Amino acid sequence: MKIQQAKGTRDVQAADKLLKNKIVNTFQEIFERYGFMPLETPILERMDTLSAKFAAGENSDALKEIFRLKDQGKRDLGLRFDLTVPLARYVAMNPTLKMPFKRYAVGRVFRDGPIKLGRYREFWQMDIDTVGTSSMLADAEIVAMTAAAFKALDLKVKIKINNRKVLNGILEQAGIKDKESAIIAIDKLDKIGKSGVSEELKERGYTIKQIEAVFSLISPKMTLAQLRKKLTTDIGKEGLQELTDVFSYLKSMDVSQVVFDVSLARGLAYYTGTVFEAYLENGPVLSSLAGGGRYDNMIGNYLGGGRVVPAMGISFGIEPTIDTLKALGKIDGTIKTKAFVIPINTVDESLKVVQDLRNEGIAADISLGKKGVSKNLQYANALSIPYSIIIGENELKKKKVLLRDMSSGTETLLSVKDVVKKLKSLKKTDG
Amino acid sequence: MKIQQAKGTRDVQAADKLLKNKIVNTFQEIFERYGFMPLETPILERMDTLSAKFAAGENSDALKEIFRLKDQGKRDLGLRFDLTVPLARYVAMNPTLKMPFKRYAVGRVFRDGPIKLGRYREFWQMDIDTVGTSSMLADAEIVAMTAAAFKALDLKVKIKINNRKVLNGILEQAGIKDKESAIIAIDKLDKIGKSGVSEELKERGYTIKQIEAVFSLISPKMTLAQLRKKLTTDIGKEGLQELTDVFSYLKSMDVSQVVFDVSLARGLAYYTGTVFEAYLENGPVLSSLAGGGRYDNMIGNYLGGGRVVPAMGISFGIEPTIDTLKALGKIDGTIKTKAFVIPINTVDESLKVVQDLRNEGIAADISLGKKGVSKNLQYANALSIPYSIIIGENELKKKKVLLRDMSSGTETLLSVKDVVKKLKSLKKTDG
Repeated sequence: MKIQQAKGTRDVQAADKLLKNKIVNTFQEIFERYGFMPLETPILERMDTLSAKFAAGENSDALKEIFRLKDQGKRDLGLRFDLTVPLARYVAMNPTLKMPFKRYAVGRVFRDGPIKLGRYREFWQMDIDTVGTSSMLADAEIVAMTAAAFKALDLKVKIKINNRKVLNGILEQAGIKDKESAIIAIDKLDKIGKSGVSEELKERGYTIKQIEAVFSLISPKMTLAQLRKKLTTDIGKEGLQELTDVFSYLKSMDVSQVVFDVSLARGLAYYTGTVFEAYLENGPVLSSLAGGGRYDNMIGNYLGGGRVVPAMGISFGIEPTIDTLKALGKIDGTIKTKAFVIPINTVDESLKVVQDLRNEGIAADISLGKKGVSKNLQYANALSIPYSIIIGENELKKKKVLLRDMSSGTETLLSVKDVVKKLKSLKKTDG
Repeated sequence: MKIQQAKGTRDVQAADKLLKNKIVNTFQEIFERYGFMPLETPILERMDTLSAKFAAGENSDALKEIFRLKDQGKRDLGLRFDLTVPLARYVAMNPTLKMPFKRYAVGRVFRDGPIKLGRYREFWQMDIDTVGTSSMLADAEIVAMTAAAFKALDLKVKIKINNRKVLNGILEQAGIKDKESAIIAIDKLDKIGKSGVSEELKERGYTIKQIEAVFSLISPKMTLAQLRKKLTTDIGKEGLQELTDVFSYLKSMDVSQVVFDVSLARGLAYYTGTVFEAYLENGPVLSSLAGGGRYDNMIGNYLGGGRVVPAMGISFGIEPTIDTLKALGKIDGTIKTKAFVIPINTVDESLKVVQDLRNEGIAADISLGKKGVSKNLQYANALSIPYSIIIGENELKKKKVLLRDMSSGTETLLSVKDVVKKLKSLKKTDG
């Protein structure tokens, strides 16, 4: 038997898991401050539930990537592949839910897809959504919350905002009929450039004149004011008004790190209005850190019966945020344990000392074996614990302990009270 | 299509999820203070990994309860049914791991079993284990940590401790050969009483004399000192020495809420030494809140090749802890949002106010629709938000806002600064 993880999964060890917990807790506090409350839904869902989204017109490639299974009653189940479908199912099952319903969710999702660098079959998503209002206040609020969440992690982000109605208006003005596939092409502008996108549009049968009409309006430097003069289709004007409202609300909310970017498309088919993405400012852009938009039709399609349930949401990338924090050295993944107590024939007294530290809120460990001092120091080093506290009979006689700085090797004879003081001062400056 | 959850799963709504997050965060802080670090392992595991435990002698009923599935490469996978098997797999895959390895894990596990009251097919476990040392210091440390964890939640618990070697020693002394099945019977003493257990032992073919010999030693009032005089088998004496060490270490650690209980057996077959359970003190005993023990053979059996990897662990019940906190009214499940801002033709100024509150760390919401004041007040009420802040043009002229206490209906004209002060003072006394 070969001992290994399932393909496409991985273990997350202490340093990364501590960082992930810190990010999730920091974000959650901000979400709650903005009035979003947590909702936990199961990982197991009925296949009926998971496939309904696709029946409603979603890309059916994703359907193939669902991990399927049966329970003992032979019921068809699947592992959730996102947090939006369970949200739609929850809204459907709770018709008395007060609207707008503002919830956040953090959890694992599963996709049985091809494995590439950085792509896993089991990974985390963190979603925040406002369901049941078409007011642009909801859009502005989620953008403001996104800015606040990254600020809480000491990350400066720039948030690009666009509106699908504006894109659709531009495409309509250029006489392009299959807007969905054109938007998928435009979504690649960052990666393949204007010439690449032009090539794709040409392949789809559009004329040079049409493509020029598209690029006369879709350009990274296009301002909202310029576009107001040039865009004349009704749907385009509606999108521009929505954008104007969002930017006006964001100004009132004192959120300044937002920019209009008419080239921002976002791949997913279900967006209907605002779309936005957050990037690290002045940093190497590896990928967006968060992104989302308005999807006014998806939940209603799911519910059926002609119900209209407008919604606006964002998904935060936990892994890219971890990678960014590490790359910037903003938070190191240091082990939290501050001291390792090593008794030399003084187990009972040493137990008292380690408990004194813990009761003071200091993370501390004690040697659990019968190893000698040097083996114990090696262990403390391997675990990156910054201080050892050696307690022998000589120290006890003097009512002191020996505090060893593990990086310098310096040893100081101190009272337990002074050790507590020193380790507490350390705590303040440490992540 | 019927819209519902998968059978045996459930949604956890805001109030319960907030409570769960609080419990998990409080516990995690204590675990880390005791030098345990987080490890995240996947939910998907290879069937090879999940079934190896059973090959090693574990109850094979559990094997039938594994949710099985295949990935696109037709590999046999399963959903993890506990957090111990993934720990064993992780230890096996990381041979250079420094021992003792102290880790905690929090996550969902899955069992395709019968559904009873309070039993789900997808539920949470929280495990803390020390791997790689047979020192009773590890056992005492985990018991002390358990006491500290419940204390941090303001719950008084009593921790019952026993040792499987003592039980085996007693059974040996009584001439009982199939110790495993006898221990399963004794485990039910709480539920079916002495007569019920006697009946079960009789059915298994033991004589009245043997059964009397068992109950002469297994009695809730039996002290360690009494047992030392009466128990003469080698294995029993070894267990008594281990218990003596654990109680001595716990005394040094100033952990007083521990009691010896020779009738504590715990059902699982894999325990080899210390077993313990935490119960609410002076409360209605619904179920134990946490329980664990030493399992010195299980990981070694899993690894094979004759490796011996002693281990000691505990599993916390998150759901019973939530239920207990609720029953005692220790933490209410109140929604965190403190204020709901209602603009009356003052959207921009109201956005500034809600941002002022949020920037001060106060969870606040703003009306996202165009509803009237009374509809907005109804919404705030439905969401249990304690205060509304009504901002009309009259209030703005006076540079004030109208703070409405939602329970009394009292309205006070205040500056935003005074609102912040009031809501912050509220925060301190609130869960």
